Amino acid sequence: MKAVIALGGNALTGKDRKTDIKLQFETTRNTAKSIAKMIKNGWHIVITHGNGPQIGSLLLQQKKAMHEIPSMPLHVLGALTQGQIGYIIQQCLLNEFKKQGIKREVVTIITQVIVDEKDPAFKKPTKPIGPVYNDKEANEMKKSYVMGRVENGWRILVPSPKPISIVESKIIKKLIEENVIVIAAGGGGIPVVRKNGILEGKDAVIDKDLASQKLANEIGADILLILTDVDYVYLNYGKENEIEIREAKVEEIEKYYREGHFPPGSMGPKIEAAINFIKNGGKEAIITSIDKAWEAIEGRAGTHIF
Amino acid sequence: MKAVIALGGNALTGKDRKTDIKLQFETTRNTAKSIAKMIKNGWHIVITHGNGPQIGSLLLQQKKAMHEIPSMPLHVLGALTQGQIGYIIQQCLLNEFKKQGIKREVVTIITQVIVDEKDPAFKKPTKPIGPVYNDKEANEMKKSYVMGRVENGWRILVPSPKPISIVESKIIKKLIEENVIVIAAGGGGIPVVRKNGILEGKDAVIDKDLASQKLANEIGADILLILTDVDYVYLNYGKENEIEIREAKVEEIEKYYREGHFPPGSMGPKIEAAINFIKNGGKEAIITSIDKAWEAIEGRAGTHIF
Repeated sequence: MKAVIALGGNALTGKDRKTDIKLQFETTRNTAKSIAKMIKNGWHIVITHGNGPQIGSLLLQQKKAMHEIPSMPLHVLGALTQGQIGYIIQQCLLNEFKKQGIKREVVTIITQVIVDEKDPAFKKPTKPIGPVYNDKEANEMKKSYVMGRVENGWRILVPSPKPISIVESKIIKKLIEENVIVIAAGGGGIPVVRKNGILEGKDAVIDKDLASQKLANEIGADILLILTDVDYVYLNYGKENEIEIREAKVEEIEKYYREGHFPPGSMGPKIEAAINFIKNGGKEAIITSIDKAWEAIEGRAGTHIF
Repeated sequence: MKAVIALGGNALTGKDRKTDIKLQFETTRNTAKSIAKMIKNGWHIVITHGNGPQIGSLLLQQKKAMHEIPSMPLHVLGALTQGQIGYIIQQCLLNEFKKQGIKREVVTIITQVIVDEKDPAFKKPTKPIGPVYNDKEANEMKKSYVMGRVENGWRILVPSPKPISIVESKIIKKLIEENVIVIAAGGGGIPVVRKNGILEGKDAVIDKDLASQKLANEIGADILLILTDVDYVYLNYGKENEIEIREAKVEEIEKYYREGHFPPGSMGPKIEAAINFIKNGGKEAIITSIDKAWEAIEGRAGTHIF
């Protein structure tokens, strides 16, 4: 079985989304145990992951030192976080494999993802990243960034263009077919445009679930497993009549999506990724929590879309 | 022909070692042209690189934000720079290939390098990294780091243990044999120790030339090409009777090394890497500048050790 596993923030940094390094290793060590189970069962796996807290920390650090050290654009910061998080996942997996006697190689591949220069997202930044700023800080930040109101202050808003294709997907496919575990497309991949064949990085952040879906289809994965904060996708989430979805055909999910059950900032992109995956030849998309991952694989938990 | 090309700082950031991102891309674009020549001639290539200026910038940035954002240890910073620099090299190479009609894939592999926990370097930090601090700043920094006097102030000194083996060398070997261009062991690799088979990152920086040599031998490379600031290795460097070395047997170079011709901070590790490479089965080590790289390959420039 060939699968892409998309790890959400709390599979890597825990519920508080803090970037303390001990916490990142501890949380990832736990995540590695779940993933090792699938690998022990012979799965061919690509692991993708988010980078929200990490890129937020880098943004704040480079802002503090901006008078001494030239700041880097978002595509380069994305590359930095791919190195960082890839290393942590790679080491935790190799250590878990050692404990369980699993003999598999693990590599992190720095991944570029093509976006369209004319994507309307570039004119309208909507994706909040990094820490929450107060009014005064936000006023200062407005000189360099588009800032957006959130519940308890302001956050940087960046363009989030749609992923079109994965530059490195051919080599990723080859590697997993040779039984190597690949970590790729971290943080949604490094956004690049292609002009007359020439790649150029863009100041943006791609949604990691949509990028994972593109990659999953390009490498011919059977399963797209999206691991997030909740065990199930719900209808009427947070309301009295909320109800978990256990199994749904893609047409049903599309109907619910149109009815507005899945908000754009959170479950929306995951549902969109699941729908796209199935429509482009994927067999099954599963959305669940990291704790329920194995149960979900065995069909005993999680939301299954096919 | 199978070669490891070790890129020094000025192949990536220019002579001033500044981390301005436009400068990094411009400089690397130029370097990519030299490398493309070798690739066009059918070479199988692994590219390694330094990370001094980049890890220095990250250290300074995280110091400025230390009260808001938890600082990361050197092994994690090393992973960050591998992602950053790997991305830049990878993109510049793919663009150069496109211009020249070369069809080869390029990947950056996040690379861990085993060191010995008992390496005496851990007790005696000697490798200067990052920016130069004044007396007042250095006093503050002494709370977290070992600081060493340099010409115009103070720099952070970190342990620089010897590389023992490359965790990812098997997969790197496989990839280059499949004609993929691999960027690996950036910044000397992420230093890790192995205790009962379990990997653990260490607060250190490995010399990039020594790590490149280890990798070159482990993948069975024919040539180790070390690109640095000078066209040749010299005897009596900087003196009136300085003389360039064009060709030398490993025994001759060892003799010169013992006589103190190659200072520990600069040419020393490159010479050590060259000697180790030949003694462990390598055919030829070449030390030259990025501008003379192709001439050196053709035997018309550079210091050749065999």
